[in-house]
Amino acid sequence: MEKFAGTIAIVTGGSAGIGKALIKRLLDKSVDLTVVGLARRPIEEFASFSNFRGFQCDVSKADQVQAVISSIQREFPGKSVQLLVNNAGHGKPLPLLDHSSLNDSCTIKVDSLEDVSSVYASQLNTNVLGLSLMTRAVSKLMDHQKCGNIININSMSGQRVVPTPNSHMYSATKFAVTALTEGTRQELRQINSSIRANQISPGYVDTDFFQAFSMEEGYQEKMKEIVKTAITSEDIVNSIMLCVEAQPGCQIGDIQMRPTVQKL
Amino acid sequence: MEKFAGTIAIVTGGSAGIGKALIKRLLDKSVDLTVVGLARRPIEEFASFSNFRGFQCDVSKADQVQAVISSIQREFPGKSVQLLVNNAGHGKPLPLLDHSSLNDSCTIKVDSLEDVSSVYASQLNTNVLGLSLMTRAVSKLMDHQKCGNIININSMSGQRVVPTPNSHMYSATKFAVTALTEGTRQELRQINSSIRANQISPGYVDTDFFQAFSMEEGYQEKMKEIVKTAITSEDIVNSIMLCVEAQPGCQIGDIQMRPTVQKL
Amino acid sequence: MEKFAGTIAIVTGGSAGIGKALIKRLLDKSVDLTVVGLARRPIEEFASFSNFRGFQCDVSKADQVQAVISSIQREFPGKSVQLLVNNAGHGKPLPLLDHSSLNDSCTIKVDSLEDVSSVYASQLNTNVLGLSLMTRAVSKLMDHQKCGNIININSMSGQRVVPTPNSHMYSATKFAVTALTEGTRQELRQINSSIRANQISPGYVDTDFFQAFSMEEGYQEKMKEIVKTAITSEDIVNSIMLCVEAQPGCQIGDIQMRPTVQKL
Amino acid sequence: MEKFAGTIAIVTGGSAGIGKALIKRLLDKSVDLTVVGLARRPIEEFASFSNFRGFQCDVSKADQVQAVISSIQREFPGKSVQLLVNNAGHGKPLPLLDHSSLNDSCTIKVDSLEDVSSVYASQLNTNVLGLSLMTRAVSKLMDHQKCGNIININSMSGQRVVPTPNSHMYSATKFAVTALTEGTRQELRQINSSIRANQISPGYVDTDFFQAFSMEEGYQEKMKEIVKTAITSEDIVNSIMLCVEAQPGCQIGDIQMRPTVQKL
Ligand SMILES: NC(=O)c1ccc[n+]([C@@H]2O[C@H](COP(=O)([O-])OP(=O)(O)OC[C@H]3O[C@@H](n4cnc5c(N)ncnc54)[C@H](OP(=O)(O)O)[C@@H]3O)[C@@H](O)[C@H]2O)c1
Ligand SMILES: NC(=O)c1ccc[n+]([C@@H]2O[C@H](COP(=O)([O-])OP(=O)(O)OC[C@H]3O[C@@H](n4cnc5c(N)ncnc54)[C@H](OP(=O)(O)O)[C@@H]3O)[C@@H](O)[C@H]2O)c1
Ligand SMILES: NC(=O)c1ccc[n+]([C@@H]2O[C@H](COP(=O)([O-])OP(=O)(O)OC[C@H]3O[C@@H](n4cnc5c(N)ncnc54)[C@H](OP(=O)(O)O)[C@@H]3O)[C@@H](O)[C@H]2O)c1
Ligand SMILES: NC(=O)c1ccc[n+]([C@@H]2O[C@H](COP(=O)([O-])OP(=O)(O)OC[C@H]3O[C@@H](n4cnc5c(N)ncnc54)[C@H](OP(=O)(O)O)[C@@H]3O)[C@@H](O)[C@H]2O)c1
Repeated sequence: MEKFAGTIAIVTGGSAGIGKALIKRLLDKSVDLTVVGLARRPIEEFASFSNFRGFQCDVSKADQVQAVISSIQREFPGKSVQLLVNNAGHGKPLPLLDHSSLNDSCTIKVDSLEDVSSVYASQLNTNVLGLSLMTRAVSKLMDHQKCGNIININSMSGQRVVPTPNSHMYSATKFAVTALTEGTRQELRQINSSIRANQISPGYVDTDFFQAFSMEEGYQEKMKEIVKTAITSEDIVNSIMLCVEAQPGCQIGDIQMRPTVQKL
Repeated sequence: MEKFAGTIAIVTGGSAGIGKALIKRLLDKSVDLTVVGLARRPIEEFASFSNFRGFQCDVSKADQVQAVISSIQREFPGKSVQLLVNNAGHGKPLPLLDHSSLNDSCTIKVDSLEDVSSVYASQLNTNVLGLSLMTRAVSKLMDHQKCGNIININSMSGQRVVPTPNSHMYSATKFAVTALTEGTRQELRQINSSIRANQISPGYVDTDFFQAFSMEEGYQEKMKEIVKTAITSEDIVNSIMLCVEAQPGCQIGDIQMRPTVQKL
Repeated sequence: MEKFAGTIAIVTGGSAGIGKALIKRLLDKSVDLTVVGLARRPIEEFASFSNFRGFQCDVSKADQVQAVISSIQREFPGKSVQLLVNNAGHGKPLPLLDHSSLNDSCTIKVDSLEDVSSVYASQLNTNVLGLSLMTRAVSKLMDHQKCGNIININSMSGQRVVPTPNSHMYSATKFAVTALTEGTRQELRQINSSIRANQISPGYVDTDFFQAFSMEEGYQEKMKEIVKTAITSEDIVNSIMLCVEAQPGCQIGDIQMRPTVQKL
Repeated sequence: MEKFAGTIAIVTGGSAGIGKALIKRLLDKSVDLTVVGLARRPIEEFASFSNFRGFQCDVSKADQVQAVISSIQREFPGKSVQLLVNNAGHGKPLPLLDHSSLNDSCTIKVDSLEDVSSVYASQLNTNVLGLSLMTRAVSKLMDHQKCGNIININSMSGQRVVPTPNSHMYSATKFAVTALTEGTRQELRQINSSIRANQISPGYVDTDFFQAFSMEEGYQEKMKEIVKTAITSEDIVNSIMLCVEAQPGCQIGDIQMRPTVQKL
C-alpha cells in the first residue's frame, strides 16, 4: 500500500455491502491514503477517519459525477487519484419475457411498458453508464506514470447466463462490464499508462443486494438459507487487495469467486 | 416460409442497411406474410407491397413502442407475430478514456461529461434497452405453440473486444446483447415455447453504419477501401434466412460472420 | 458450388452420421467435384458415384494420414483440395472424478488408471490431434489463391460445460477445437490465403454418436426419446453448405445450433 | 494454512519455475504439511525439508502416476491429500499450418507428419491428459468432507487465441484445461465435496518456459527484453495462496493475470 501514499482512492457504492467493507479496509491499512466514498445515501460510517471524505452522488448522472470531480480537484489540489473501484451497482428482478410462469415472489410488479423501461434502464444506467462516466472522468485525475488501479466489480453473471429469468437484464449489464474492463485495459496500454485494469466477478455475496429484492416472508426465509453459505464482503475485499497490492508490473485481470456450494 | 403464412414479421431498423435488405427479401419470398418495419425515419421504400406496413418509432422509447404494438393489434386482429428481428442499432465513436492519442478523425467531439453521457446512453438505449422493450412487448403478440423466431442482430463486437477505442462502448452494448439472446432462449424454453432465439454476429458489413461516422475526407477514403472487402447485407440476410427456414425442431443459436480478409 | 469445380473435397468420418450425409449432399450437388471420404471402416455407400473415393484411415495416426495424402497426390495430379471438413470425432463416457454417484448406465467400466488413460486419449487423439494432422497436411494441397474452406465440426460442448460428468473430457477436446478453428483462421489471414476457416457447433444430432454409448436397454429407451427431438444430419449439412456457398469475401465463423427443445 | 495441517499437498512440475516457487512457499508456510513434488527430472532443491518428498514422474504416463499414488499411500498411511496443484506443462513452438512465413527462429524443425504429431501430442499429453490423470487419481486420496483445493495452472492462452502461430496448439491444450477446471468444479459439487476447483491463468511469467524454446541468439536477446517486464513465479504463487487460504466457503474460480505492459 505504500505505493499509494499521498494519493486518493475512490470507491463508488460506499454506503453498504462490498463498498463499505472496502473503504473500511483501505482506511485500516493506510493513513496516507485519502479515501473518497460515493453513494446516493450519505455515508455516515467513517466520520472518525480524517482521511475519509464522502459524497452523495448518483453515478449515473453526469452532472452529479462532474460536481464530485470538481470538488475533489478543489479540496485535494495536487493529489492524484491512483485507485478507482467501480462498485456501485444493483439488480432489479424482472424477466425479459412477460409470462406469469417466469415471475416469482420478488419479481417487480409492472403495469406498463414504461414501467418495464424504468426497471431495465435503472440497471443499465448505474451498472454500465455510471461505471463508464466514473472511469472517463476519474482517469483524468490519475497520474498515468505511477502505479494505480481501475477495478470494476463485475459478477459471475457477467461471465455466463443462468436460468433465473429475474436476473437476465442484470446479467446483460454485467456482460457489458466484462467488455468495459477489457476495453479500459486496452486503452490504458495504448496510452502507455501504468494504471492497471482489474475486475472481480463474484457469485452470491452476503450483502443487501439480494435481500432488498423483496420483503415477502417466503423470500426472506429462502434468502436466509442462501446467505448462510454465501461468500462475504471480506472475501471480495481480499481479492481486491490482491489486485491493489500486486507489484506494479503485475496486473490481475479477472478474479472469479463463488460460494463453494454454489452449483451454477 | 410457408410455416409463417398468415402471420406478421417485425423488423426494426428497416429504413437502411441490413433491415431494409431483410424486408425486401421477406416481401420477395412471401405474399402471405405481413411485414412490419420500424425506424425513426419514415420507410418509403416498400410502398408497392400491400403486405408491408411501416411505422416511425424510436425503439428506445417505451411510449412509441407501445403505440406501435397497439396499432398492430388494431390493424391486424387475429394475426400473431411469429418473427421479430431486432436489428435497429448504431455505434457512436468515442473511447472510454479521455486522452487525445485515442481519438481519431471520426471520434465525436465532446465538451462536457454530459456530452459523453449522451453519446454512451444513445447506444445503450437503442442497442440494449430498445431491443429489450421490443422483445418484451412483441413476445406477447406471439403464438408460442407455433414455430417462430426472435432474432437479435448482434456483432462480432459482442464476442470479443478489439483495440479500436472508438468502438469500446458499442462493444459493451453488444456483449449485453449476447447475454440477452441467451436469456431470451432460456426463458422461451422455460415457458415451453416453440419460438426460437437466434443471433447473427457480423463483422464489417457494407451499410451506412460506419460511413456515417464522419464526413471527413480521409475517413471516407479509408472507408471506401474497407467497404470493398466488407460483407454485404445480402450475406447477413442469407444467414437470417437459415435461422428462419430451419425446420421447427432446429434452433440456430449464433452465426458469426466476417469479411474473409478481416484480421480481428 | 461452381467455384469448387475441378477441385477435391475431403470429409473425415464419412462412414456414418453427419459425414455420410455431407458426402451425399456434395455428390448430389456437383459432378465436377471429387469427393474423398475417410473413416476407419470402409465407406461402401457411394460406389455408384465415379467422383467419390474412399480411404480407410484413422486420422489420429500420422502415417495413415500421410499415406492418404500421398495417394491423393498420385491419383489426382494437378487437382487442389479446396474443401476440408474435419468431422471425424467421438465421445467416450467417463467422468473426470472416480466416484460412483457420477456414473450412469453408459459410463465406461475401467479397471485401472491405464484404462482411464486409454478412454481419455482416444478422444484427444481423434478430436484434437487427428483434426490438427489433417489440417496441417491438407492445407499443403490447397490453392491459397482460390476460394475454399476448412470446416471443423465442433459441438455446443466446445462452447460451455454442461453438468453431465460423462461428457466432460469430450467437452475439453471440443474447447480445444474452438481454439484450433480460431488459430487456423488467424494463420490463414497471416499468409493472405483465400481459404476460410469455419466451425459448426451442434447440440444433440440424430446420429450413432450417442446411441453407441451403451446397449443397455434403459439407456436405449431414453435415447429414443431424445432422438425424437434431436436435430438431424441434414440440418448440419444445411449449415455447412451456408459456409461453402457463401460468396468468397464472406467467412462464416461459427454456427451454433441445437434442438429447439434443448434446455442447456 | 492451519486447515491443511496433517495433510498432503501435491505439486506437479516441481523441478522448475512456478512449481518450484510454490513448493518453497508451502514449505516455508507450514511444517505440518507434507509437500510432494513431481517432475520428470529429480527435484534436488528441498532436501533440507523433512516434510518434502520428491518423485520422478511423467504425469502423462498412467503407470508412472499410478506408481506415485501407490507410494504415497504406502509412505503416508492415514494422511489425505487436500491440495493438488496441476502445474506441469509445456509448449512446443509449431504453427497449425505448414507455411514458411509462419515460422520464426524458435519454430521446431519437423521433417515429416510423424514429427508434427510428436510435437502436438507432447503438449496434449502433458497439459491435458496428464492433468486429467492426476485429477482422477489424486481425488481418490482426498477427504471430501474437509476443505481442500484442486488448482489447475492454465494460461491466458486458455482464454483467447493470440496471433502467434507457434502458440496455437498450446492454446488449444489450455482451452481444454478451461473446460476441465469447470468440469471438475461441477463434479465436485455433484458429489457434495468440500474440495474447491481453482484455476490461475497467467500471461508471460519469468520462468524457463519460453527461454527454453530456442538457444538462437536473436531469440535469447528478445526474450531477455520480455522477461524484464514479465510477472514472476512469486506473483503466481501469491494468487495460488489466495485460493488456498480463502475461508472454506469461498471458492476462487479463475485468476487471470498478466504483465501490466502486456498488450494482448
Ligand atoms: N451481492 C452479490 O451477491 C453480488 C454478486 C455479484 C456482484 N455484485 C456486485 O457488487 C457490487 C456491490 O454490491 P453489494 O453486493 O455490495 O450490494 P449493496 O449492499 O446493495 O450495495 C450497493 C451499493 O451501491 C450503491 N449504489 C447503487 N446504485 C447507485 C448509484 N446509481 N449511484 C451511486 N451508488 C449506487 C448503493 O448505495 P446507495 O443505495 O446509497 O446509492 C450501495 O452502496 C455491485 O456492483 C453488484 O452488482 C454483488
Ligand atoms: N454495418 C456493420 O458493419 C455491422 C456490423 C455488426 C453489426 N451490425 C449491426 O447491424 C444492425 C443494423 O445495422 P446496419 O449496418 O444496417 O446499419 P445502418 O445502415 O446504419 O441501419 C441502422 C438501422 O437502424 C435504425 N435505427 C437506429 N437507431 C434506431 C432507433 N433508436 N429506433 C429505431 N430504429 C433505429 C436506423 O433507422 P433510422 O435512422 O431511421 O432510425 C436504420 O434503419 C445494427 O444492430 C448494427 O449494430 C452492423
Ligand atoms: N451427434 C451429436 O449429437 C453431435 C453433437 C455435436 C457434435 N458432434 C460431432 O459431429 C462429428 C460427427 O459425429 P456424428 O454425430 O456424425 O457421429 P457418428 O455417427 O458416430 O460418426 C462419426 C464418424 O467419425 C468417424 N471416426 C471416428 N473416429 C475416427 C478416427 N479416429 N479416424 C477416422 N474416422 C473416425 C466414424 O467412422 P469410423 O467409426 O468408421 O472411424 C464416423 O464416420 C463429431 O466430430 C462429433 O463430435 C456430434
Ligand atoms: N511461463 C509462462 O509464461 C506461463 C504462462 C502461462 C502458463 N504457464 C503454465 O505454467 C505451468 C508451469 O510452467 P513454468 O512457467 O513454471 O515452466 P517451466 O519453468 O518450464 O516448468 C515446467 C515444469 O513442468 C514440468 N513438466 C513438464 N512436463 C512434465 C511432465 N510430462 N511430467 C511431469 N512434469 C513435467 C517440468 O519439469 P521436468 O522438465 O523435470 O519434467 C517443470 O518442473 C505450465 O502449466 C505452463 O503452461 C506458464
